[in-house]
Amino acid sequence: MTGRVAVTGGAGFIGSHIVDRLLSRGAEVVIVDNMSTGQPRFIEGALATGRATLVVADVKQLEPLVDAFAGCDAVYHLAANADVRHGPEHPRRDLDENTIGTFNVLEAMRRAGVGRVAFSSTGSVYGEAKVIPTPEDAPFPLQTSLYGASKLAGEGLIAAYAEAYGFTARIFRFVSILGERYSHGHVFDFYQRLLADPSSLTVLGDGKQRKSYLYIEDCVDAIELAMSDAQPRVAVYNLGQDHYCEVRDSIGWITAHLGLSPELKFGTGDRGWIGDNPFIFLDCGRMRGLGWQPRLSIRDSVIKTLEYLQANRWLLDAR
Amino acid sequence: MTGRVAVTGGAGFIGSHIVDRLLSRGAEVVIVDNMSTGQPRFIEGALATGRATLVVADVKQLEPLVDAFAGCDAVYHLAANADVRHGPEHPRRDLDENTIGTFNVLEAMRRAGVGRVAFSSTGSVYGEAKVIPTPEDAPFPLQTSLYGASKLAGEGLIAAYAEAYGFTARIFRFVSILGERYSHGHVFDFYQRLLADPSSLTVLGDGKQRKSYLYIEDCVDAIELAMSDAQPRVAVYNLGQDHYCEVRDSIGWITAHLGLSPELKFGTGDRGWIGDNPFIFLDCGRMRGLGWQPRLSIRDSVIKTLEYLQANRWLLDAR
Repeated sequence: MTGRVAVTGGAGFIGSHIVDRLLSRGAEVVIVDNMSTGQPRFIEGALATGRATLVVADVKQLEPLVDAFAGCDAVYHLAANADVRHGPEHPRRDLDENTIGTFNVLEAMRRAGVGRVAFSSTGSVYGEAKVIPTPEDAPFPLQTSLYGASKLAGEGLIAAYAEAYGFTARIFRFVSILGERYSHGHVFDFYQRLLADPSSLTVLGDGKQRKSYLYIEDCVDAIELAMSDAQPRVAVYNLGQDHYCEVRDSIGWITAHLGLSPELKFGTGDRGWIGDNPFIFLDCGRMRGLGWQPRLSIRDSVIKTLEYLQANRWLLDAR
Repeated sequence: MTGRVAVTGGAGFIGSHIVDRLLSRGAEVVIVDNMSTGQPRFIEGALATGRATLVVADVKQLEPLVDAFAGCDAVYHLAANADVRHGPEHPRRDLDENTIGTFNVLEAMRRAGVGRVAFSSTGSVYGEAKVIPTPEDAPFPLQTSLYGASKLAGEGLIAAYAEAYGFTARIFRFVSILGERYSHGHVFDFYQRLLADPSSLTVLGDGKQRKSYLYIEDCVDAIELAMSDAQPRVAVYNLGQDHYCEVRDSIGWITAHLGLSPELKFGTGDRGWIGDNPFIFLDCGRMRGLGWQPRLSIRDSVIKTLEYLQANRWLLDAR
């Protein structure tokens, strides 16, 4: 996208990379972020271009979004509670920040006359998928987490808005994303805990959970490709790698890179937490059909993430 | 279900029939209704038994629900905005009344210690289904209406609550329901307009929309059967007839029953409104697998509805 574009959650991990990419293409960018988990350092470079502005606003409030979106050609909606693990301790959080937040973004777009949206959904909407690798038209799933349920609700709202008001929408169901500015997830947690105690590492679940991951630049490539494509009104794309790893594999890469041999303490179940999905692996053939190809393997993405965290220890304290 | 049971929307069309059925089985019933579309006359008989109480409360408010659910063994959650047609004119209504309403019901259940729920979802969650008759595990659909999106969100919340907090849930995806106390939909609209002008009838769309309908007593039979079944935590059931009709068929039955020959004025499109689905026909094999069998055909259900409306003209003015 070029022109004027708003990015909600634009100071966050994925959002700030999208901001940088849009700026590199010549767009003007309105960064909308409540700065609760967004980092000023992630958008320093963007703001220095003179073509990006920061609007500190929360998607839980409609009116400031209407103002922020004025004159925009598209909205990339990344702002969300991204913590899938602790949903049951805060049952209303995903509803407020993700479902109602997405409604507010759509309604503000409608009022501001913006009709093009990209949305960061999640592979968690497949629950415990019966078809693996899981395609976008997999059998109608049962939700297993409040996070997944809130993203499913967001997808539904977007498709209904597209039908009712003629929006064009691109919905992306991500696996976990890795890379520079990564600030939550298993690599972050393991690194943080190994810094505190290099001699042992406690793992949630039995470590045999199978997951796929994608490198942030590969993720942004896909989003930009899909947003520039002239396809029908609503299109849904899985975004992931064409391979997966076990949590134990990732632990091996991390400890080897750090030169550590901690005692590993595994849990007993095949799930790390309530609603954890022991096997996430998406069929990304639809996205590849547009000509997209990820460049970094899961292993290389894990190492790159680790190198970034080693060079940016401030981020460990910033949370 | 016996014991103590709460029914949200218990003064509405479907809810009040569930209340009557529960009472006939010996249950104590807490009718929760904001009385916005619920009718005092629908629950007169229930209240007269001495085993039903009415709590005038709105599912948009959490706290009154916690009180209302105290001591209950199950909640039948029927309260909802059921107007699929005018969604685009009121974009936030389905979010507030259906999505947030369902969240409040679940959260109130959790706080009150109630772990069993029945939910009135809709065949509209399938959007424009690619598989017809549509089974519960049809390909992951795109939403086409704000109403469908809000029910999908409700389903997701229920499944996530079941996973997180151990709830047992039965989710019912209805076709349109017909019968006594029916108070909105095409039979209602056509009858009302033919009373005003028996000489002509304007039809939304080309009248070739194919829809299935189910008689209210058949619907309640199914809900009770599924709620008494000892199946796993979350089960989803389509509820409909094993045949469908065109809107033109239904108009023929209605006008013949009334002895009228109005001039029919059809629209041009295959949809009656934005998000209208030109072909709704659900595969109800899963529900039939429990031994359920509907007794009234669509035609007989339409006639029965019409006879009810003829004998209850007050309902035409009550809306």
